Amino acid sequence: MDRPKFPPFIGLIPVLLVVFFAVCSSAQYQPNWNSIDSRPLPAWYDQSKFGIFIHWGVFSVPSFDNEWFWWKWKGIKQADVVKFMEDNYRPGFTYPDFAPMFKAEFFDPNQWADIFKASGAKYIVLTSKHHEGFTNWPSKYSWNWNSMDVGPKRDLVGDLAAAIRNKTDIHFGLYHSLFEWFNPLYLQDKANNFTTQEYCEKVLWPELLEIVNAYKPDVIWSDGEWEAPDTYWNSTEFLAWLYNSSPVKDTVVTNDRWGAGIRCHHGGYYTCTDKYNPGVLQKHKWENCMTIDKVSWGYRRNAPLADYLDMDDLIELLASTVSCNGNLLMNIGPTADGRIVPIFEERLRSMGDWLKVNGEAIFETTPWRAQNDTVTKGIWYTNKTTAAYAIVLDWPADNQLVLGVPIPNSQTSLFMLGYNQPLKWSGITSKPGITVTMPQFTPDTLPCEWAWVIQMKMVQ
Amino acid sequence: MDRPKFPPFIGLIPVLLVVFFAVCSSAQYQPNWNSIDSRPLPAWYDQSKFGIFIHWGVFSVPSFDNEWFWWKWKGIKQADVVKFMEDNYRPGFTYPDFAPMFKAEFFDPNQWADIFKASGAKYIVLTSKHHEGFTNWPSKYSWNWNSMDVGPKRDLVGDLAAAIRNKTDIHFGLYHSLFEWFNPLYLQDKANNFTTQEYCEKVLWPELLEIVNAYKPDVIWSDGEWEAPDTYWNSTEFLAWLYNSSPVKDTVVTNDRWGAGIRCHHGGYYTCTDKYNPGVLQKHKWENCMTIDKVSWGYRRNAPLADYLDMDDLIELLASTVSCNGNLLMNIGPTADGRIVPIFEERLRSMGDWLKVNGEAIFETTPWRAQNDTVTKGIWYTNKTTAAYAIVLDWPADNQLVLGVPIPNSQTSLFMLGYNQPLKWSGITSKPGITVTMPQFTPDTLPCEWAWVIQMKMVQ
Amino acid sequence: MDRPKFPPFIGLIPVLLVVFFAVCSSAQYQPNWNSIDSRPLPAWYDQSKFGIFIHWGVFSVPSFDNEWFWWKWKGIKQADVVKFMEDNYRPGFTYPDFAPMFKAEFFDPNQWADIFKASGAKYIVLTSKHHEGFTNWPSKYSWNWNSMDVGPKRDLVGDLAAAIRNKTDIHFGLYHSLFEWFNPLYLQDKANNFTTQEYCEKVLWPELLEIVNAYKPDVIWSDGEWEAPDTYWNSTEFLAWLYNSSPVKDTVVTNDRWGAGIRCHHGGYYTCTDKYNPGVLQKHKWENCMTIDKVSWGYRRNAPLADYLDMDDLIELLASTVSCNGNLLMNIGPTADGRIVPIFEERLRSMGDWLKVNGEAIFETTPWRAQNDTVTKGIWYTNKTTAAYAIVLDWPADNQLVLGVPIPNSQTSLFMLGYNQPLKWSGITSKPGITVTMPQFTPDTLPCEWAWVIQMKMVQ
Amino acid sequence: MDRPKFPPFIGLIPVLLVVFFAVCSSAQYQPNWNSIDSRPLPAWYDQSKFGIFIHWGVFSVPSFDNEWFWWKWKGIKQADVVKFMEDNYRPGFTYPDFAPMFKAEFFDPNQWADIFKASGAKYIVLTSKHHEGFTNWPSKYSWNWNSMDVGPKRDLVGDLAAAIRNKTDIHFGLYHSLFEWFNPLYLQDKANNFTTQEYCEKVLWPELLEIVNAYKPDVIWSDGEWEAPDTYWNSTEFLAWLYNSSPVKDTVVTNDRWGAGIRCHHGGYYTCTDKYNPGVLQKHKWENCMTIDKVSWGYRRNAPLADYLDMDDLIELLASTVSCNGNLLMNIGPTADGRIVPIFEERLRSMGDWLKVNGEAIFETTPWRAQNDTVTKGIWYTNKTTAAYAIVLDWPADNQLVLGVPIPNSQTSLFMLGYNQPLKWSGITSKPGITVTMPQFTPDTLPCEWAWVIQMKMVQ
Repeated sequence: MDRPKFPPFIGLIPVLLVVFFAVCSSAQYQPNWNSIDSRPLPAWYDQSKFGIFIHWGVFSVPSFDNEWFWWKWKGIKQADVVKFMEDNYRPGFTYPDFAPMFKAEFFDPNQWADIFKASGAKYIVLTSKHHEGFTNWPSKYSWNWNSMDVGPKRDLVGDLAAAIRNKTDIHFGLYHSLFEWFNPLYLQDKANNFTTQEYCEKVLWPELLEIVNAYKPDVIWSDGEWEAPDTYWNSTEFLAWLYNSSPVKDTVVTNDRWGAGIRCHHGGYYTCTDKYNPGVLQKHKWENCMTIDKVSWGYRRNAPLADYLDMDDLIELLASTVSCNGNLLMNIGPTADGRIVPIFEERLRSMGDWLKVNGEAIFETTPWRAQNDTVTKGIWYTNKTTAAYAIVLDWPADNQLVLGVPIPNSQTSLFMLGYNQPLKWSGITSKPGITVTMPQFTPDTLPCEWAWVIQMKMVQ
Repeated sequence: MDRPKFPPFIGLIPVLLVVFFAVCSSAQYQPNWNSIDSRPLPAWYDQSKFGIFIHWGVFSVPSFDNEWFWWKWKGIKQADVVKFMEDNYRPGFTYPDFAPMFKAEFFDPNQWADIFKASGAKYIVLTSKHHEGFTNWPSKYSWNWNSMDVGPKRDLVGDLAAAIRNKTDIHFGLYHSLFEWFNPLYLQDKANNFTTQEYCEKVLWPELLEIVNAYKPDVIWSDGEWEAPDTYWNSTEFLAWLYNSSPVKDTVVTNDRWGAGIRCHHGGYYTCTDKYNPGVLQKHKWENCMTIDKVSWGYRRNAPLADYLDMDDLIELLASTVSCNGNLLMNIGPTADGRIVPIFEERLRSMGDWLKVNGEAIFETTPWRAQNDTVTKGIWYTNKTTAAYAIVLDWPADNQLVLGVPIPNSQTSLFMLGYNQPLKWSGITSKPGITVTMPQFTPDTLPCEWAWVIQMKMVQ
Repeated sequence: MDRPKFPPFIGLIPVLLVVFFAVCSSAQYQPNWNSIDSRPLPAWYDQSKFGIFIHWGVFSVPSFDNEWFWWKWKGIKQADVVKFMEDNYRPGFTYPDFAPMFKAEFFDPNQWADIFKASGAKYIVLTSKHHEGFTNWPSKYSWNWNSMDVGPKRDLVGDLAAAIRNKTDIHFGLYHSLFEWFNPLYLQDKANNFTTQEYCEKVLWPELLEIVNAYKPDVIWSDGEWEAPDTYWNSTEFLAWLYNSSPVKDTVVTNDRWGAGIRCHHGGYYTCTDKYNPGVLQKHKWENCMTIDKVSWGYRRNAPLADYLDMDDLIELLASTVSCNGNLLMNIGPTADGRIVPIFEERLRSMGDWLKVNGEAIFETTPWRAQNDTVTKGIWYTNKTTAAYAIVLDWPADNQLVLGVPIPNSQTSLFMLGYNQPLKWSGITSKPGITVTMPQFTPDTLPCEWAWVIQMKMVQ
Repeated sequence: MDRPKFPPFIGLIPVLLVVFFAVCSSAQYQPNWNSIDSRPLPAWYDQSKFGIFIHWGVFSVPSFDNEWFWWKWKGIKQADVVKFMEDNYRPGFTYPDFAPMFKAEFFDPNQWADIFKASGAKYIVLTSKHHEGFTNWPSKYSWNWNSMDVGPKRDLVGDLAAAIRNKTDIHFGLYHSLFEWFNPLYLQDKANNFTTQEYCEKVLWPELLEIVNAYKPDVIWSDGEWEAPDTYWNSTEFLAWLYNSSPVKDTVVTNDRWGAGIRCHHGGYYTCTDKYNPGVLQKHKWENCMTIDKVSWGYRRNAPLADYLDMDDLIELLASTVSCNGNLLMNIGPTADGRIVPIFEERLRSMGDWLKVNGEAIFETTPWRAQNDTVTKGIWYTNKTTAAYAIVLDWPADNQLVLGVPIPNSQTSLFMLGYNQPLKWSGITSKPGITVTMPQFTPDTLPCEWAWVIQMKMVQ
C-alpha cells in the first residue's frame, strides 16, 4: 500500500519553533553551544559524587538479555533473543503486549527511598523513558504507552519523586531518551535524513516540557542522541529554555548526550561512553555511569551471581572515579513487579556501610594533585581543604603501607577513618614518600570490610 | 502533581494550518459550507441503495454491551459493564489490555468479500477507527494503538480494501471518528473549550490524510463530531482538500457529521441520527444506518436470537428507506477473531437472495411520486424510467392486492418480479386505484420468501 | 528414566470388584448380556423421538476442527490442528492450559432450558465427560480437571439438571466417555492389553457411580468403548447395578456403546455409528445422533454458514429417523463462555415451530407398515392408533400428491396438520394409492414452512 | 445436590493392602515401629552434616507469603493473601490456574548442581510434591497436576536427579507430603475420620512407589502427616517395603514424619519441628531443617534483604546443630522460572567457601563430650578420632580465647584451620581450661570471614 504523503505545511512548524525558542531565549543563555557551555554546573552535583541509576521499563518484563531487548529482537534480530521469544511466547506476541505484565504490584517508593538513603547516594536518576518510548509518567504524548494507561497504572516517576523528596535529601534526576527505536514518526524523520522534525514536534519536545514542568528534576540525563545532529533535536533551544526559563533553571544539571558528535564536547557534565572511567584526571566534570550487573542495565532474570560486581569492584570504581573528578552513577534494575532484588539491596546497603565510615574521603572532595600512587598499586587520592585522603584498596602485606606521592612535613599527622588514634609513619620532610604502619585489627575491630582510608593532615 | 504548562507557541500552529488550508483550497471548493454543500453527490452512491456497515475494533474483544464499552466502563461507569469487568478481569486490567486479544486469527478478507458480494450490497463502510482511537490501519499517529503494532498484526483496512477491490465491484468506504473518548490531547482541548487544537494537529488531521491517501476510500463516514464545532475540527478545510486535491476528489462521498449542529444540515448525504428513517420523502439524499443486532453495532457475544432483526424487519427497512430517497447501511459486527458469525452471514445471504429477484426495484431507482400506498399498508414504491415498483411486504389475504396510488391506462401492464407472466388486474383508466390478482404459488414456486414486488409498466 | 513397577496386589482389586458386582446383582438383572438385554426400554424414551445432544467441554475453548482437538493435536498430529496451535499459542502451551479459559461466564441454564423447551425436544443429553476426561461436574476422581476446580467454577451438570427439571418436563441425560485419550492410568491398562484395570478402579467406576447417584440421569449415553472389551470396562456389572440398585433403576435408558463389538448388538437402544440413519425399519429401538454443524460436535468457531444443516435437512432427518423406529438426537455445541449461538438457537426454535404444528405425527408414534412411499419421493410415514401420517418433504408440483402406499376405504378421511378442513382426495377402495389435492395457501396462510403432514384416518 | 454414596466394597481394599504388605514384609523388617526403628541409619547420612532443602512447586508462581499460599488463601482465608489475590487476579482465578505459569524456562539442572557442589553440601532434598499435591514428576496418579502435563513440561525430579548424579557426589533426596490440603479423596477420608483410605489407595501409595522406583532417592523426607494416625497412612507397611524390598533398601534414609504422634518418636532421623535446634546433645540422630528466608520455604518475591539470614547466622546454625548430633538442612526456594536467585547463590557459595577451610570440623565428625563452652559464649565443639574442634563464632576481643572445657596435656597441640602454624596456648595439664592466643591477621590473610576453627589435638 502507498503510505500517504503529507502537504508541505507540516514542514513549516519547526521553523516556527526555532523562531520561538530564539525569541524566548533572549535571556541569559542563547541556543548555541558557546552560550550553553558557559553555564556553571550547579555545585550540588560535584559535591554528590555518588548516585544511583535506575533502569526500569517494559524491558523489565522479559528481563532477558538487557534493556535493548526490543531492538535486539525486532531490530537486529539477535539469535538468542529471537529464540527466547519463539520458545516462550505465542507467534504474534508483540513487545507492547509486555506492557500489561509490567504491573509493579510490589512497588513501594518509600521502601526504595529507604534503601537509597541507606546506600549513601546523594542523587538518583530514573529512566523516565528509555528507547522503547514507554513513559513512566502519564504523558499526554504517549497515550496507551505509559505507566498510567497500561501496566502499573501509576505515575511511577511522580510517586518515586514524592517519596524521595519526603523521606530523604537525595536529588531526584530523570533519564530521558531522545530517540525511540520504533516510533514511526521518528523513523520517518530518519528516513528523511532528519530534514523533517515531526517526531520532535509531536513527541519529543512536548514530553521534555512535561517532565521538566511536572517533576522539576535535578538531573536531565539525556541519551539516545547519536543518530541525529543536535540541530534535529533542537538541543540548544531546549537547554536555553531549561537554563533560562524552566522551573529548575537554577538547580538542574544535564549531561552531554545532545546530538551526534556532541557527547564529551558540550552540555553539562560529560559521560563520553557508558562505563566511562579514564583513570586520569579530567578537567571537565564527568560521570562514570556503570551497572552492578555487568551485562545489563535493566533487570536480567537469569544473571548468575558471577555477573554481579562485588564490593571490591564497586569501591575500586568509586575511588578511581572520584579521584579523577568524576561522579559514580551505579545502576540497578528493578523488577517488573516493582522490587529491588536482595542482591542489589545488599550491594547498596554495603556501599552505605562503607560510606558511613569513609564518606569523608568521597563527598565534597576535589581531586588532589595526584590521582593514584606512584609506588603502591590500588591507592586513589582525594582532597579537601583540611586533609588529603588515600583510599587503600588492598591491605599491605606486612602492615607497612608505602605511599610514594605525599610529601610530609613536621606537622603531618595521619589517621585511619573509623579508627581514632594517630597512625605511626615515617618519611623525610619535604621529600615525597611516607611509610605508614597500619594498625593491628582483629576481624571484629576492623573499621570496614573492603577498603581503608588514610586521612593525611598537613601533607603536600 | 502539577501537570506541566506549555509555552504559548503551541497555540500558533492551528493558525498556520488554517492559513494553509485556505491557500491550498484556492481551487474549486472553498472551506465554507456554502461551497462544500454545492458539490454534487457522486452518482454511484444514490444508485447503490444498499451498503454494509462493519463495526470492528478492540471493543470486539469484550463484545459485551456494545461498542461504547470503554466509555460505559470508565466514562459513565454503567453498572452492568463495571460489574462485567469486576467479575471477569483482574483489578488493574485496562481497556488497552484488550488489544492483544484482538487477534483476528480467522480473518479472511476474501471470505468476507464473498459474503458481501452474495448479499447484493453495493458498498461497505468499515470502522477505520472508532471512538476508542484504535486504528485498524498502521497509523504513524497512533503508535502501539493500531492493528499492526498490537493484536491482529495486520493492516485490517488495507487487507479488506484489497480483497473487496480484487473480488468484487463493491465500493469501499471508511468510518472515522473525529473525537476519541480518552485521548489526552483531545481531553485537553476540550478542557480548553476547544480553543486549542493540539489533538487535531497531532492526531486527527494527520490520520485523515493517512486514510484518504493510503486507502482512497469511496466513502468517508464521519462520526464523533458532536462535542465540538466544525471550526475546531477544521471540517470545511478538510472537505475542501478532499474535494479539490485528494486522490478521491471525484468519487468520494461523505456524510454530514462534521461538527456540532452540522448533522442533517451540511456535508454530503445526511444521516441525522443513528437508525434515521423518516418514513416520508426527503429532498436531500440520506442514509439509514442501522444494525442487525438491535442493541449493538459491535459484536455482542451474549445477544440472544431475539435481538437480531429478522428478514421481514430488514426488507421492510430497505423498502421504506429506498422509497423515501435513502440508502440502507446495514451493520454487522465481526468477532475479535475475525469472523462474521453465521447468523449475520445468513441475514446477508438471505438479503442477497431477495435482491437477486427483486433488486430491479431497489438499485438505481428514484423515489416515485408516492412513497407508500394510501389504501394498503405495507406497500412501498420505487421508480425507474421504465416502470414503477410496488414492494408488497404482506401477501394480501385473498390474493387480491389493492393499490390506491397508481393510475392505470390502456397500456398498463403488471408483472411480479421472479414470475414471468403478466398479472391480472382491474382498475379504471386515469383513476387512481388498481386491484391486482396475485398468482397462485405453491411453497416451492414462490419467487421469494419475504416480500414481493409488482413491476408496474405504463402507470402514472 | 525407568517407570516404577508396582507390586502384584493391584491386580487383585478387579477380581474383588467382579465378585462384589456379582453378589450385589443377585437381584433381577445378572451381569451378562442375555440378562441385561432382557430389560424393556422404559417407555418414555421411545415416545420422545426428539432429543438434543450437547457437546461442551474444554474443547469448546479452541473450538477449532472439532471436539477431538486434543487427540488430533497430540495423538495423530493432524497438520492443520498442529499449525493452529503453533500459530496461536506459545510453545509449551498444553491442552490443560485451555481449562482456565473455559469460563462459561455467560452460562444461564434457565435460558438454555427455555430454548430447549421451545425446540420441542423431549430429552437432552449433555457431555458429562468427553474423551478428554474433563468432568463437567465436581468429580472427586478428576481433581483439578473438572469444571468446579478450574474454568467455570460451577457444577455445570448439576446446574443444567436443576434448570431443566425446574422449568421443563424434558428428560435429562448424560453422555459419558468410557476411555480417556491421555489418562495415564488408561494408557497403562491399554499397554497391558487390558489385563489390568487400574483406570477403571481409580477413575471410571467411581465416576459412573458419582454421576448416577448425584444427578439421577434419565439417559446414560456411553461412548469411547471401542478399544477394549466390555469385560475390561465391567460393563455388564455396571448395567446390572444400574438396573437393579441405582436410584434410576426404573427410568434410566442407556445406549449400546459398552465395549468393543457390543455396539449395535447389546445394551439399551442402538446407536451403531454416529449419524446412523439406516433408512429402513429397525426392529430394535435406535437413535440417530447427528449434529447441526456437519463437521463438528463441539462448537467450531470458524464454521461458515454452509456447514450448518438447514431446516429442510433437519426435518428430513427427523422424519426418516422416526419413521424407521429411531429417535433423533440433534447436537449443538455451546461456546466456552456458555452461550448457545444464535444460529443454533434459530434452528432449535424453528424445529419447535414445526413441531408445534406437526408434533402429532412425531411424538408417541410407532412405525407404520411402510416407512416411505413407493411412488413419491420424500414421503415418510408414522403411525398412531387413531391415524397414520405422511410427512411430505416437498410440495407436489401441481398440488396433486400421489401416495402409493395407503389403502383407502369408504371411511377414509384426510387432513393436513395445521389446516382444519378435510382434504379432497381420490383413490379406489381397498387398493393402494391415494391422490391428495393439497390446499391452496398463500405465503401467509401456510401451516408451516418446511414440510407438511397429511393425517390419514381410516386408511390401511 | 446430593453427593453420591458408594457401595461398601470400596472399604475392602485397604484390608487387602494390609494383608499384602504383611505378606511381602515377611522379610527383615516388620510393619511395626519396633521393627522399623531397629534399622540402623545408613552411615552416609550422619557423615554428611550439611544438606540443601529445595522447596519448588506451583506456590513458586505467586511466590507471596509462603509455600502454604493455597491453604492461606482458600483454607484459612488469611487476609493479606486474600487481598493479594483480589488485587492482582481476576475473580474465578483458581490455584490450579497458576500451574501454566510455572514454566521453569530458565531451569538448568547442571547449573544448580554446580552451585550445590560449590556450597559443600553432601545431600539435597527436593520437594517431589508439597501439600498442594502437584507432583514435580510425571505421576500417573496426578494427571494434569504434575510438571510434565502442565507448566514446566519436564520431569523436574528426574532432570535434577540426573544432573546431581552426573556432576557431583551429592546424595539425592526427595521431600514428599503425605496429605494434600484439597485433594477431594483425602478430604473425604478425613470426613470419615480416617476410617476409609480411598486417598491412600488411589494417590498416596501409588505415588510413593513411583518416586522410590523411578528416582531411587537417598532420602525420603516425609511431611504432612499430622492430621491422621500412621495406621491411616500405612506408614509402617510402606517403610517395611522400603527397607526390605525397594531398590534403595540399603541406602535410603527417612525422617520421622509418618503419622500423628510419631514425629520425634519413630522412623529414621528425627525432625521434631521445623527449625528444630535443641542446643543440647540428642542421642537420636536429628536434623535441623531451616530456611535462609526467615519467613518462607518457597520463593517469596517480596522478601527484603533483612529477611534473609546472613552468613553469621547460618554458620552459627551449622555449628550448633552439628555439635549436638544434628544435620543442617538449609532451604532455598527457586523461582517459578527455574532460577536460584543470586542472594541464595551467594549464601550457598559463601557456605562453600567457609567449608573449604573448615569442613574438617564438620563432615564426618561426632559430637564431643561437650557441645558448647562453659566459659566463652559462641563456641561449639565437634570431634574426630584425631582431634576435637572448637568452632569460634566471635573473635576474642584481645586475641585471647579462653576455652573452659578442654583438658590439655603435655602432648596437646592446637592449630587454626586454614593457618598452618601451631598456636600458642596456656593451661594446666589435666585441668580443664586452655587460653589460646589467636594469630595476628591482616584482613587479607584471614583464613575465612565468619567463624574460625581451633583444631585441638591430644586434648580431653
